[in-house]
Amino acid sequence: MEVIVPFSTDRPKSRLSDVLSPDERAAFARAMLDDVLDAVKGAGGEPRVLATDTVDVDAPVTVDDRPLTDAVNAALDARLGTEERDRSPESVAVVMADLALATPAALDRLFAAGHDADVAMAPGRGGGTNAFVASHPEFRVDYHGASYLDHRGIAAEVGADFVAVDSHRLGTDVDEPADLAEVLIHGEGRAGTWLREAGFALDASGGRVAAVRD
Amino acid sequence: MEVIVPFSTDRPKSRLSDVLSPDERAAFARAMLDDVLDAVKGAGGEPRVLATDTVDVDAPVTVDDRPLTDAVNAALDARLGTEERDRSPESVAVVMADLALATPAALDRLFAAGHDADVAMAPGRGGGTNAFVASHPEFRVDYHGASYLDHRGIAAEVGADFVAVDSHRLGTDVDEPADLAEVLIHGEGRAGTWLREAGFALDASGGRVAAVRD
Repeated sequence: MEVIVPFSTDRPKSRLSDVLSPDERAAFARAMLDDVLDAVKGAGGEPRVLATDTVDVDAPVTVDDRPLTDAVNAALDARLGTEERDRSPESVAVVMADLALATPAALDRLFAAGHDADVAMAPGRGGGTNAFVASHPEFRVDYHGASYLDHRGIAAEVGADFVAVDSHRLGTDVDEPADLAEVLIHGEGRAGTWLREAGFALDASGGRVAAVRD
Repeated sequence: MEVIVPFSTDRPKSRLSDVLSPDERAAFARAMLDDVLDAVKGAGGEPRVLATDTVDVDAPVTVDDRPLTDAVNAALDARLGTEERDRSPESVAVVMADLALATPAALDRLFAAGHDADVAMAPGRGGGTNAFVASHPEFRVDYHGASYLDHRGIAAEVGADFVAVDSHRLGTDVDEPADLAEVLIHGEGRAGTWLREAGFALDASGGRVAAVRD
């Protein structure tokens, strides 16, 4: 199955600007992308990076500088089609590039759920849409706001059956400083190594464990 | 399988004090407890509330006013034993009372994982331990700090094989205001209803969706 991995090459991870410099944010975002690509391959998926500009990665790249929703919908148009309703399209997955905790096992569960439903989706913390598999020809995305609930609504509108995939790993998109602790606790790849080498460590002195820097 | 549900009757959910009064926190904590008990029963478990004081709930109650770690370890002592190493103890589960997103399906996955490993554990956001099943006679808990990592270490020390259960629902303990949004998005029981009736609604104007009050 083709797995589209959207990736923004300009000002990535701006909500981490309190704890990482622009160059650091770019390097960390790239480490997460490489982890996600590895996990996708480990789950038997064929990743394709959907980037806002050229990027040198170990996967095919499509450049589309439009906003995320438009770029992903163009990719869904091309793969799920809009005209030929008589044929059943192949499934396509969209997995965000900042899922630093993604593992082949977690993606296996997503892909398996996508075999059994028109739309299988892993919600992100805070109501986002972190990963999904779709095979329904009319399903499209809208990433603004509480997109997970919106996507459930869109699936219902087009008559697509929907299943949620209950995963902490796929539910953890790394956007904010509090998310860095999750990477230190659970990350098994480059992103966790990058954070540790940048001086981050766990601090259990508060309510929840936080990532703090030397 | 017996499922122990620890519940604090005094000053519950103090980290929600910025958004809920003491009486409201008690009512909300109770709604979450009732949701968890329903989910446990729905997954075929036999819940027992381990409370710091008497509480009138639809399940057997054991009162133990010691700190959480001591009370849970006393329960594990009684069930997993320490003397009779020759017999294989039955599994016992410990599921926190603030897992307002818990469903029978999510707990089914935890219980099934507990059949195949000495210790099966669902980590909470921030490195906590939200739910586990143990059958190893020497496994004990220590809920301070990043307890999930500590519990992995304890399992390794006693030679218990360990498996993580990857669940957003079981990973979401409701402690802080940001967690309330998860209840509004995914909660299917009393806790979500309680929040809505108390005037909370989703607000998608910031980075992540938040729960705001009228």
